[in-house]
Amino acid sequence: MKQLAIATVGLMLSHFSFGQTPADKQKVESLLKQMTLEEKVGQMTQVTLGVVATAEDGVLDPSALKKAVVDYRVGSILNVTNHALSVDQWGKVITQIQDETKNSRLKIPVLYGLDGIHGQTYTLDATLFPQNIGMAATRNPELAKAVTKVAAKELRASGVRWNFAPVLDLGRQPLWSRFPETYGEDVYIGKTMGATVIKAYEEDGLRNPTAVASCMKHYLGYSASRTGKDRTPIYMPEIEMREYYLPQFREAVKAGASTVMINSSEINGTPVHASKYLLTDVLRKELGFEGIIVTDWEDIKRLNDRHFVASTPRAAVAMAVNAGIDMSMVPTDFSFYDLLIEAVKKNEVPMTRIDDAVRRILLLKAKLGLFDNPYPEKNAAANFGKPEYQRLALDAAHEAMTLLKNDGNILPIPKTAKILVAGPAAQSISALNGCWSYTWQGKDETWYPKDSKTIFQSISDKIGAANVTTTTAKGFDAPQNFDTTALKTAAANASAIILCLGENAYAESPGNITDLALPENQINLAKAAWATGKPVILVLTEGRPRFITNIEPQMKGVLMAYWSGKKTGEAIADVLFGDYNPSGKLPYSYPRSMGEIVMYDRKPTEEIREIFNSDMTMDGYKPLFAFGAGLSYTTFEYGDIQLSSKQLKGAAKLTVSITVKNTGSRDGKHTVELYTHDQYASITPSIQRLRAFQKIDLKAGESKTVTFTLDKNDLAFVNEKLKTITEPGDFDVMIGNKKATFTYIQ
Amino acid sequence: MKQLAIATVGLMLSHFSFGQTPADKQKVESLLKQMTLEEKVGQMTQVTLGVVATAEDGVLDPSALKKAVVDYRVGSILNVTNHALSVDQWGKVITQIQDETKNSRLKIPVLYGLDGIHGQTYTLDATLFPQNIGMAATRNPELAKAVTKVAAKELRASGVRWNFAPVLDLGRQPLWSRFPETYGEDVYIGKTMGATVIKAYEEDGLRNPTAVASCMKHYLGYSASRTGKDRTPIYMPEIEMREYYLPQFREAVKAGASTVMINSSEINGTPVHASKYLLTDVLRKELGFEGIIVTDWEDIKRLNDRHFVASTPRAAVAMAVNAGIDMSMVPTDFSFYDLLIEAVKKNEVPMTRIDDAVRRILLLKAKLGLFDNPYPEKNAAANFGKPEYQRLALDAAHEAMTLLKNDGNILPIPKTAKILVAGPAAQSISALNGCWSYTWQGKDETWYPKDSKTIFQSISDKIGAANVTTTTAKGFDAPQNFDTTALKTAAANASAIILCLGENAYAESPGNITDLALPENQINLAKAAWATGKPVILVLTEGRPRFITNIEPQMKGVLMAYWSGKKTGEAIADVLFGDYNPSGKLPYSYPRSMGEIVMYDRKPTEEIREIFNSDMTMDGYKPLFAFGAGLSYTTFEYGDIQLSSKQLKGAAKLTVSITVKNTGSRDGKHTVELYTHDQYASITPSIQRLRAFQKIDLKAGESKTVTFTLDKNDLAFVNEKLKTITEPGDFDVMIGNKKATFTYIQ
Repeated sequence: MKQLAIATVGLMLSHFSFGQTPADKQKVESLLKQMTLEEKVGQMTQVTLGVVATAEDGVLDPSALKKAVVDYRVGSILNVTNHALSVDQWGKVITQIQDETKNSRLKIPVLYGLDGIHGQTYTLDATLFPQNIGMAATRNPELAKAVTKVAAKELRASGVRWNFAPVLDLGRQPLWSRFPETYGEDVYIGKTMGATVIKAYEEDGLRNPTAVASCMKHYLGYSASRTGKDRTPIYMPEIEMREYYLPQFREAVKAGASTVMINSSEINGTPVHASKYLLTDVLRKELGFEGIIVTDWEDIKRLNDRHFVASTPRAAVAMAVNAGIDMSMVPTDFSFYDLLIEAVKKNEVPMTRIDDAVRRILLLKAKLGLFDNPYPEKNAAANFGKPEYQRLALDAAHEAMTLLKNDGNILPIPKTAKILVAGPAAQSISALNGCWSYTWQGKDETWYPKDSKTIFQSISDKIGAANVTTTTAKGFDAPQNFDTTALKTAAANASAIILCLGENAYAESPGNITDLALPENQINLAKAAWATGKPVILVLTEGRPRFITNIEPQMKGVLMAYWSGKKTGEAIADVLFGDYNPSGKLPYSYPRSMGEIVMYDRKPTEEIREIFNSDMTMDGYKPLFAFGAGLSYTTFEYGDIQLSSKQLKGAAKLTVSITVKNTGSRDGKHTVELYTHDQYASITPSIQRLRAFQKIDLKAGESKTVTFTLDKNDLAFVNEKLKTITEPGDFDVMIGNKKATFTYIQ
Repeated sequence: MKQLAIATVGLMLSHFSFGQTPADKQKVESLLKQMTLEEKVGQMTQVTLGVVATAEDGVLDPSALKKAVVDYRVGSILNVTNHALSVDQWGKVITQIQDETKNSRLKIPVLYGLDGIHGQTYTLDATLFPQNIGMAATRNPELAKAVTKVAAKELRASGVRWNFAPVLDLGRQPLWSRFPETYGEDVYIGKTMGATVIKAYEEDGLRNPTAVASCMKHYLGYSASRTGKDRTPIYMPEIEMREYYLPQFREAVKAGASTVMINSSEINGTPVHASKYLLTDVLRKELGFEGIIVTDWEDIKRLNDRHFVASTPRAAVAMAVNAGIDMSMVPTDFSFYDLLIEAVKKNEVPMTRIDDAVRRILLLKAKLGLFDNPYPEKNAAANFGKPEYQRLALDAAHEAMTLLKNDGNILPIPKTAKILVAGPAAQSISALNGCWSYTWQGKDETWYPKDSKTIFQSISDKIGAANVTTTTAKGFDAPQNFDTTALKTAAANASAIILCLGENAYAESPGNITDLALPENQINLAKAAWATGKPVILVLTEGRPRFITNIEPQMKGVLMAYWSGKKTGEAIADVLFGDYNPSGKLPYSYPRSMGEIVMYDRKPTEEIREIFNSDMTMDGYKPLFAFGAGLSYTTFEYGDIQLSSKQLKGAAKLTVSITVKNTGSRDGKHTVELYTHDQYASITPSIQRLRAFQKIDLKAGESKTVTFTLDKNDLAFVNEKLKTITEPGDFDVMIGNKKATFTYIQ
């Protein structure tokens, strides 16, 4: 009996932690024994497609391919040369690469990796969904799971089995150009969504033609650069790192993530690629991560020529591999291969470290079935572009839509109204999709599906072209889009103006900005719009919160659309004209100004102590729109919070129930959010922390009781000694405008 | 011989570290033996003057005074009720207080403390000098010493022997409302100026009627709040704290500072007033500080009702005293006294801790000569308001003036020109002095000396009233000061416009702002000024850098005047019209935008890696005006850097010499600044660090050779293990446009 129990646990652990079969392990160990140092180091080398491709899209250069795959025995290839390829082109590329591996001594297949960020970025006609920031607004992990499965299927259909997603970086620095790739400012949303998505990519087993290996990005703290510019220094005390930035990775490891990509920047002066503490002590030992640790683009070289912590390129290679890096995204040459071989020969890197890295790489290849069949799979290809993905894209865009303001119930607008649609985002596709959309930057509309709709088109389709005019030309930056005179003229015959402002697509450092202010030409457009005297509804399509503090008061309605993928335009039109009742909740605090970037889970000491200044209030948190903001066309009312007990003891559980009633006249979805507050603690306690949420559907007049279960782990925080603990004492639990208090006893 | 050497060292240490005589020590120990718990706790209690005063200025309430001094035996009183008092009023207040102590059992004199921040704030007609930010611009420690001696004399003349200065907080968060009280962004300037000032307050021995006890403010990291709002949370890794924020305190302790005041806020979730690590382990044990640790305003109470780390007021008291607090600035009641007595009786605070605190307090009183004569000293009073202080105030204001732009040598302006002086600062006194000027906020001009001059008055006096007009009324915020039409009309007859923009006075939290943008009415004034077509010279009187990015290109000249005290107006006029050749150097990086707040000593990784964005450059440091910026009316040229050796070994010294020539036609002062750069290090090395400076005076055509001596400590940094070390390798030394390289060998 005891024997059996242990065996079961062993099996579960093995399945859970890495998912390989005994045969996989045998295959790996057998290969490892045969491999030369060069073959091993080759496996640790990853190059970009450009290294083996010709200038013609999707066409490889046979001699370059032979050099990479046979001479240098590279373990992995990534990326595209310019833009997305068709499924067929991918089929040919992957086939040609794997064919070439047959010419190498050990015939080890290549692991291909891509950035499928909100759907499969790099396959033409793949379905694009909301960016993570929009998925966070849905507060719907089931929906996140569904869209992730589609991304996985469309990757695998393209012959690609490794996706560099999800981004788990926390969005607390709104200047950061990768803010849209985050799940926003809250840890609980981040870890819940992150773990859900990782399971969705991987849980059916990586041999399954609907699965891909996921990649936790970007370990650790990448999003928190002080200036917000991409890949610039982070300064952060470890207590904050552990409280806010590490939990998502801890949950993602538990969820079975196969790989992790490392933050290109430095934390407190130490580049993460050189941090044995973060890579080995924390990630491997403390979090128990067993998968592949891959660098980001060129980051080992950067230890020498950008961070200046390694005085030679070889020292940089040794430093990174010794810290715990398994695979180097070199990726434009073979320098890593040459230097690592040198370093091993000079005993600067032990063979045990090389074997450890290569074992992890081969094991993932085995688990993915690459040794069985490295080619694009027919049964995977069948999953590409199914019609139902379009409906799912619309569902996701619908649920992301976050209605932030609706003065005098200006929305929904009757379909008989005469509408002027203005602003640079009105006839843009790229401003609805954002980064990683068929190209890296997502800006080039050439590659988008032909049936993609703009906001203007979607509104025209809904209420009839005769009822809609626009002053906007195609192309976000077209000069006429900012013509305030034309706007005023066109507004004469309109009963309302839909003003579409925000950001065109950008990704990574090209998205760097120096100020969150909306560009002046957009502000001027808003001023011109309200000067017409017509009601103005502001639609924001943006990856991060751009200041609208000086125009918001004059807007009758504000709809945050984020970058919500293929169906953004239709979802906006559905909300504006009442065909969909919005339920999105803002996943971040929309700031008013540079000095008011404060998160919802702030410390009480953010409140100001003294008031002698007419511009100030005591309140340290006065965002333009609060975290969790989001209106509906119906209304919801809460009953009192019911606790199963006034005490929570030790490892017991506490049940928290609340009844929610739809008191309006429309059906609607609603997310119930549970927050807690520790009244006193050894570290100043946050005013509130989100600990649970549930999204429910309520028909007009309907009531439902929502039940949450808390235990002491839901009340924990990181203390001065960097331990996650729960201290005895009184806790408040808050849902909506209701509050209850209980005592935790150790 | 050996015996003697030890004795000498002992004497030196005793003199150096605390300065008491053997008799002082005996007095203290004898008193301590006699004291009851209540008497001891009374000594640890500090109340504000309002507790013992009537509503009438400078008049005490005898029964309230008796309650504080006899019943509660308070050790210290601070502050004023509303505004500065005359020397005579102070004499009466102090006398009355010390008289009352004679009615207490042990007749221990009261230690009176005040915030004399840039001169003696709270005595009418005391001389006010530039704020620390302006003193940092002078790069002249001798000058800082001279003005500090005046402040000390005018405090002591007022019967006050304890000054809550200097502020040693580093100015790296320009939103912070106490930025003007800092020495700017650089550690070396901060520690050099800080130590100089502390010595100037204390070095002649505290019994000397020209000395006062100084107070290091505000230990630790106070200036680095994330939002810049006063007393809001700081998040900072210890490596950064030790590299940038701690060295000033380390030097100040070495310089003999008698007291320290604690940061009201929290670092990484721990209120500093509750941090035994920072107060006892670091400040007492590591830095060897032996003086009094005093709280800031109400900060023990705040542990309970603001930080929520203590669940009762008594727990807050015990927590703070056990962490290392010696004296509580309660200061509006006696709650601390009652609670600490309770806490001791319940064994929550050991008597050893109480004795330790009281011993330090009594020892300072002894050293200050309070046991000999606690009353205002006649020989001290004679040092008040000497005529030469006015000249010193002018010298200091002159040297602070920092000329940031001088297109086409528009400056100096001929005295025959017709000048329009405009802008809200043109007829303001408070906007030239700033915080802590006769009142806390410095805004009420009622209390300023009658001979204070505005910019307008100073210019009129210099070039004749007939040549000067203004559109500005008295009072910074007078509506007519922002009348753009009036400005345009008045400009018609002017040959140039002196536009005086910036900030009116503020201190602490009333100075909180949410944006560094200059108010729109000031920006509009600038636009109106340049629209006249007349050359505009911008004079900035401001405590922190307010964004002028969108108006600076149209300004022909920019003069940064800071808040430079009594003689600011005259100093500005002298520079503008060529009677003084400016030599100030900006002590901070003047930022362009919220996303470009980067310090001169940045890491190379602040540079941006990729450019695909027309608004961006690779350069991570592009302030509007760089740290160290400052023009002269003459020109200086450097010869090559001469090193005494290409190698620096172990504890040896390296001599760095450079010849500077005044190649222009005017005499001028010039600060030679020496920077170093560590080419590779285990923590990413800063691009540059200021390691030494010397200010010299050069006649037109004259050359001088300036010599610096460096040792390995000048090359050190804080490593990952939090140790300050110097790593072997190549170092660059940079002076102006010259560079040399040497190797440090361990």
